[in-house]
Amino acid sequence: MPDLRKDPITGRWVIISTARGKRPSSFMTAKREKTHIAICPFCPGNEQRTPPEIYALRPKEHTTPNSEGWQVRVLPNMFPALGIDGELEKKGIGMYDMMTGFGAHEVVVETPDHTKSTRDLSIDEISNIITICQDRIQDLYRDVRFRFVLMFKNEGEQAGASLEHSHSQLIATPVTPRRVKEELDGARHYYKQKERCVFCDIIDQEKDVGKRIVYENDAFIAFCPFASRFPFEIWLLPKKHEVDFYASRGHINDMARALKIVLLKLTRALDGPQYNYIVHTSPNRFPRRGYWHTIMEDYHWHIEIIPRILRTAGFEWGTGLYINPTPPEDAAKYLREITVTI
Amino acid sequence: MPDLRKDPITGRWVIISTARGKRPSSFMTAKREKTHIAICPFCPGNEQRTPPEIYALRPKEHTTPNSEGWQVRVLPNMFPALGIDGELEKKGIGMYDMMTGFGAHEVVVETPDHTKSTRDLSIDEISNIITICQDRIQDLYRDVRFRFVLMFKNEGEQAGASLEHSHSQLIATPVTPRRVKEELDGARHYYKQKERCVFCDIIDQEKDVGKRIVYENDAFIAFCPFASRFPFEIWLLPKKHEVDFYASRGHINDMARALKIVLLKLTRALDGPQYNYIVHTSPNRFPRRGYWHTIMEDYHWHIEIIPRILRTAGFEWGTGLYINPTPPEDAAKYLREITVTI
Repeated sequence: MPDLRKDPITGRWVIISTARGKRPSSFMTAKREKTHIAICPFCPGNEQRTPPEIYALRPKEHTTPNSEGWQVRVLPNMFPALGIDGELEKKGIGMYDMMTGFGAHEVVVETPDHTKSTRDLSIDEISNIITICQDRIQDLYRDVRFRFVLMFKNEGEQAGASLEHSHSQLIATPVTPRRVKEELDGARHYYKQKERCVFCDIIDQEKDVGKRIVYENDAFIAFCPFASRFPFEIWLLPKKHEVDFYASRGHINDMARALKIVLLKLTRALDGPQYNYIVHTSPNRFPRRGYWHTIMEDYHWHIEIIPRILRTAGFEWGTGLYINPTPPEDAAKYLREITVTI
Repeated sequence: MPDLRKDPITGRWVIISTARGKRPSSFMTAKREKTHIAICPFCPGNEQRTPPEIYALRPKEHTTPNSEGWQVRVLPNMFPALGIDGELEKKGIGMYDMMTGFGAHEVVVETPDHTKSTRDLSIDEISNIITICQDRIQDLYRDVRFRFVLMFKNEGEQAGASLEHSHSQLIATPVTPRRVKEELDGARHYYKQKERCVFCDIIDQEKDVGKRIVYENDAFIAFCPFASRFPFEIWLLPKKHEVDFYASRGHINDMARALKIVLLKLTRALDGPQYNYIVHTSPNRFPRRGYWHTIMEDYHWHIEIIPRILRTAGFEWGTGLYINPTPPEDAAKYLREITVTI
């Protein structure tokens, strides 16, 4: 089982995933020969090459689990960052703190078609993926040891994707990760001062100003945030105050449409960029003592899309201060003016 | 002049550097044709291709500024992340906060020899670079508008280096960056509880345990930290409690030796890795109202060396929780067993 270790200075947790353990020699080899996977484990017909499926959407009747006929397929990750077998145990080692790397790591294969990316799927197909991910997160949150589930996607090698076949991932963690906690704390602080959600206020401000908006429909809005860390960074939010991903269940179609259009615009703007997107939803609010389950009014779930076109360097690592060469107003204008047909 | 903009949720500052402004088309071009710089602006004979030098170490007598004969040369960055011409002004824009991107961005060309990296230089040559950087930081801190100066190095394209010729950089910022502040706050919190420096305690613990140490001499120690974020991450610290980089003035030779040996070991282990290193020194302690100048006992300057062998992906961006596949004990053992001759 992996370790979770805490930096004694900043309190930052790190996952030491011995399951993925790499010897120095493996890094040297990786540099020399590009690994080539001849057989894609996510393609139909290769279901036996993956761990047994957790769930599959099977539109065709009479297809059996772990065989062809699925539209979306959810699997345990073959090399999980956190392990689900075992117990959550915490201990001190000298002055250091650690806990067992208890968690879950699932892969959502988005389509049987190896050649398609999320943006190429139909609104209905994207809606199905979203629905399934919402259900998986709800299911994982039934285990109160999971404090947070991140849904994310790595598209392209620069963005950290190890397999080409389009897939999203879910990782459930036994701690509330620091970037999530920073947002939660910031939003709570704002709410205490103003009795309003900071994300709702941002949406209002962006609608007033207009110049950073990329796309908008009845239920969703996409804009380049005022303090964008990266060129063409885009946030996608429900316009109504909704604390968690599942709360947007009623307008999944609008969400799928917004996501598809924004990704198509990005592709046109940046000639098929590599990107990450991450879903920031509320931590586990199933009843538990303490702080988290009281959050209801002050957080607002959203998607952050980060095109990977610049490399972060020493300055960003050393300071956490990002240098963005493209003002979000310019990026948004460029994206807004691209027309896409779906 | 660039903008500094604050994310209204987390309080994270971002530099929008319009001076480096890139249109979407420039990213698309960058993908297609690799820019080739035929003439290196950092090589001797090309001094006129850079802005006038701020300082140069000229061992040969009778050489004139901005001409050949230098050993180390300090220049303003041609495309500065922050601008020194102008005033530090703060303002609100609707609900958002910004300030002018006032700061300084200097480049330290480490050697006239285009083919050499830091690890190839002699102990004396590395000592000279360190001395000059210490002096530059002291000089920049005379301007109390600068809250912090980061010294850092990007080695290799993967690590964000845009020019091959070996150089370090200094960036002075008008805010204390969040990663630095996290360390300062953590160290202060620890000191308040224990009346001891957390870094000094870590050094003691590492010496007791031994298994994460990479190298040690009279004045410096290098180890893979307990909660390493990256495979082969190494921290290098003065063994004596020293709050800022300048305080190690008395044992620069040991620092240069430790740096050279650690970089040589890394090169042997990872077959010439690309890396970043960053110097975390104390913020500006020149007399000023408030908090910072009181820090004397609780912070401990250090260098963090980060080999860039893995790509960060959506999970790390979304959570700030790093997945490290190589336990620091394994990395340190491997590095310790490599013998290098200098």
